[in-house]
Amino acid sequence: MAKSSSNASQSGMTTHRIEALTDGIFAIAMTLLVLTIELPEMAKGVAQIGLHDLLIEQMHMLTSYAISFIVLAIFWIKHHQQFYFIKRTDGKHLWINIFTLMFIALIPFSTSLRGDYPDDWVSAIFFGSNLLILGMLSLLNWIYATQGHRLVDPNLDKQHIALNTRIGAVTPLVALLAMGVSIVSPQMSSYIYLLIPILIPVVQRRSRRTKGD
Amino acid sequence: MAKSSSNASQSGMTTHRIEALTDGIFAIAMTLLVLTIELPEMAKGVAQIGLHDLLIEQMHMLTSYAISFIVLAIFWIKHHQQFYFIKRTDGKHLWINIFTLMFIALIPFSTSLRGDYPDDWVSAIFFGSNLLILGMLSLLNWIYATQGHRLVDPNLDKQHIALNTRIGAVTPLVALLAMGVSIVSPQMSSYIYLLIPILIPVVQRRSRRTKGD
Amino acid sequence: MAKSSSNASQSGMTTHRIEALTDGIFAIAMTLLVLTIELPEMAKGVAQIGLHDLLIEQMHMLTSYAISFIVLAIFWIKHHQQFYFIKRTDGKHLWINIFTLMFIALIPFSTSLRGDYPDDWVSAIFFGSNLLILGMLSLLNWIYATQGHRLVDPNLDKQHIALNTRIGAVTPLVALLAMGVSIVSPQMSSYIYLLIPILIPVVQRRSRRTKGD
Amino acid sequence: MAKSSSNASQSGMTTHRIEALTDGIFAIAMTLLVLTIELPEMAKGVAQIGLHDLLIEQMHMLTSYAISFIVLAIFWIKHHQQFYFIKRTDGKHLWINIFTLMFIALIPFSTSLRGDYPDDWVSAIFFGSNLLILGMLSLLNWIYATQGHRLVDPNLDKQHIALNTRIGAVTPLVALLAMGVSIVSPQMSSYIYLLIPILIPVVQRRSRRTKGD
Repeated sequence: MAKSSSNASQSGMTTHRIEALTDGIFAIAMTLLVLTIELPEMAKGVAQIGLHDLLIEQMHMLTSYAISFIVLAIFWIKHHQQFYFIKRTDGKHLWINIFTLMFIALIPFSTSLRGDYPDDWVSAIFFGSNLLILGMLSLLNWIYATQGHRLVDPNLDKQHIALNTRIGAVTPLVALLAMGVSIVSPQMSSYIYLLIPILIPVVQRRSRRTKGD
Repeated sequence: MAKSSSNASQSGMTTHRIEALTDGIFAIAMTLLVLTIELPEMAKGVAQIGLHDLLIEQMHMLTSYAISFIVLAIFWIKHHQQFYFIKRTDGKHLWINIFTLMFIALIPFSTSLRGDYPDDWVSAIFFGSNLLILGMLSLLNWIYATQGHRLVDPNLDKQHIALNTRIGAVTPLVALLAMGVSIVSPQMSSYIYLLIPILIPVVQRRSRRTKGD
Repeated sequence: MAKSSSNASQSGMTTHRIEALTDGIFAIAMTLLVLTIELPEMAKGVAQIGLHDLLIEQMHMLTSYAISFIVLAIFWIKHHQQFYFIKRTDGKHLWINIFTLMFIALIPFSTSLRGDYPDDWVSAIFFGSNLLILGMLSLLNWIYATQGHRLVDPNLDKQHIALNTRIGAVTPLVALLAMGVSIVSPQMSSYIYLLIPILIPVVQRRSRRTKGD
Repeated sequence: MAKSSSNASQSGMTTHRIEALTDGIFAIAMTLLVLTIELPEMAKGVAQIGLHDLLIEQMHMLTSYAISFIVLAIFWIKHHQQFYFIKRTDGKHLWINIFTLMFIALIPFSTSLRGDYPDDWVSAIFFGSNLLILGMLSLLNWIYATQGHRLVDPNLDKQHIALNTRIGAVTPLVALLAMGVSIVSPQMSSYIYLLIPILIPVVQRRSRRTKGD
């Protein structure tokens, strides 16, 4: 099926294959996140402390895990929404996606930094930078693909393109906000990312209202 | 193929994609479980003890591994049976599934807690809560999808829907039972989960008998 | 596509889905094997020893890695050859496959035991038992599916069925041989498994010759 | 779909299945790379050092991660470009691919060696050898498949075959160069691999110009 597309005959690469690799890397990164909360057990010296206290102490790790999992899920959803409209690929587009994957695969490391150094603003800035770069690459992916309808259907609605560009700006802006907050309170900055799933529907609704006017 | 469904054109998301991500996360979580039994080798100090004694000591870890693997396999089977009938998805349904994945990916951590603290009721309650939440999310997934035939075929048999709801209640109830038992005997509580593959066919058979009356 | 098979409508499960989960677990188990040769770096105390000596010391770990990788690849090939002919599944068949997956996912642990205790016959017996059980489950999978043409095409050649049964007996027999050798020389026993890729073509060729007579 | 190919009926194996396993192993190897930069956190003794200094110290690990990720991505692209033209498989071709997968799965280990011993030429030679073998297996895969149009379309353009052979020679040659440089400067040798994505388009362009003459 993928083998019949005329674009693929030039580069030997279809969007289908990029999607398959991306799905794999998302699934693995989301599952590897769990290793970021396993460390305490490995240091056997802590066996004297009761498990109850240990788990309470680790609670911020469980929170980091949950936040990173949700953030990765949002990127995964956005990725599929973009690729639903992207019909072709080319060399530059392929590399935008490979760099995206590189920073997706880095999320378990950034999360483990947050979990190990919850009160340190350096870890908060590192995590925020990871998300900022991811958000910008995701936005770049959309802008590059839709500019002059380069890799999308020539009939794709311009308003739809603009809406998705606006949605794509949410994550980078929230990451910048969280990095600002982390100077004051590294701990609190983690929760700022939960604004992403809240703000995206807001942007969508406002846009629909405007359209209705 | 997935790209032609009319529902997908609105959300950019098909059940096909959720199933692919879910399959990936199940496969990885089931394979990562094995890391929960590798810890003793990592602490090189134990090299003095004979391997034979070490393996006997670790036997409860192998048991934890096997039980968690079987439980994940049951959830995987149930997931596919549900999605065999679920034809569409929507925003809420997508998030029910993302939270399900979050607690599936957490199972290797819960299992390693059980393996490291086999006699501690806190680890048994943690593991039980993980399964209770998973079971309830799975049940919610089915109820949400079938209520008013929201995401399933409009002709799907009501008796079939009711049967699957009853089957979906087995895991949460067994998890509650296991958590109760864990107050008395944390070790024994692990084996309670083996009731799940025993009880599901019982519920199915009873339902078929009733139908035959 | 998978959703139209008449058997699947009863169990909600197709061979296609089992194959996808199996492919995932094979890919992950084969890649996780590499973690079995990472341990020395983690124990930072060894940094004083030169890397050159460390790698030579670790050579048996690289060998264990290569042997386990090849053995898993052989099981993967055999699995696909079996499922090429298996057209349906049922409850018992599903559970034979889930137990197969459980012992495939265990291979990285067995390999790390071999790597950590190369001179210990206990680790050799553990590894051999893992392969013996895998080999027997794989054979059982084929016998169960082909008995009375239960899950295969009714026209599938009986000689072909018998040949694959004979090929399926190679791995369990080699595993038993290796376990026997391990009593005398645990180190040497690892290399016995390389008989599997050598013996399978021999069985195939002999069978073809017999047919030609 | 895969089940109808006439070649597959002989070996029970299609290129489709090899591609699926390969995609899985690439995705996992690329994501496991991140574990090679997690070590410092695990050694809890370093908690006294500030995270800022720790990250700067670890910078070479982040570089190793990025280089290995890019190299794996290049191999993944090349693999798909080759399999776009490879229509069949046979026993020898299958084993060339299994050995390729073995050395792809080894990359996270080689990368962690580079990360742990950045100034040691032994780790640079080990990493270089891993890439040299991978590059040669990839080249062998192409030569074996195209020799006498063994596994490709009989009408596949000979110039195209020759071009891909020349592109396939880039990685082994760069690996040899990097291994040479590593004798003088192990650190610098890592960056040599970035020549691969630079040289491949050069070879492609030169070939197109020659064609145009």
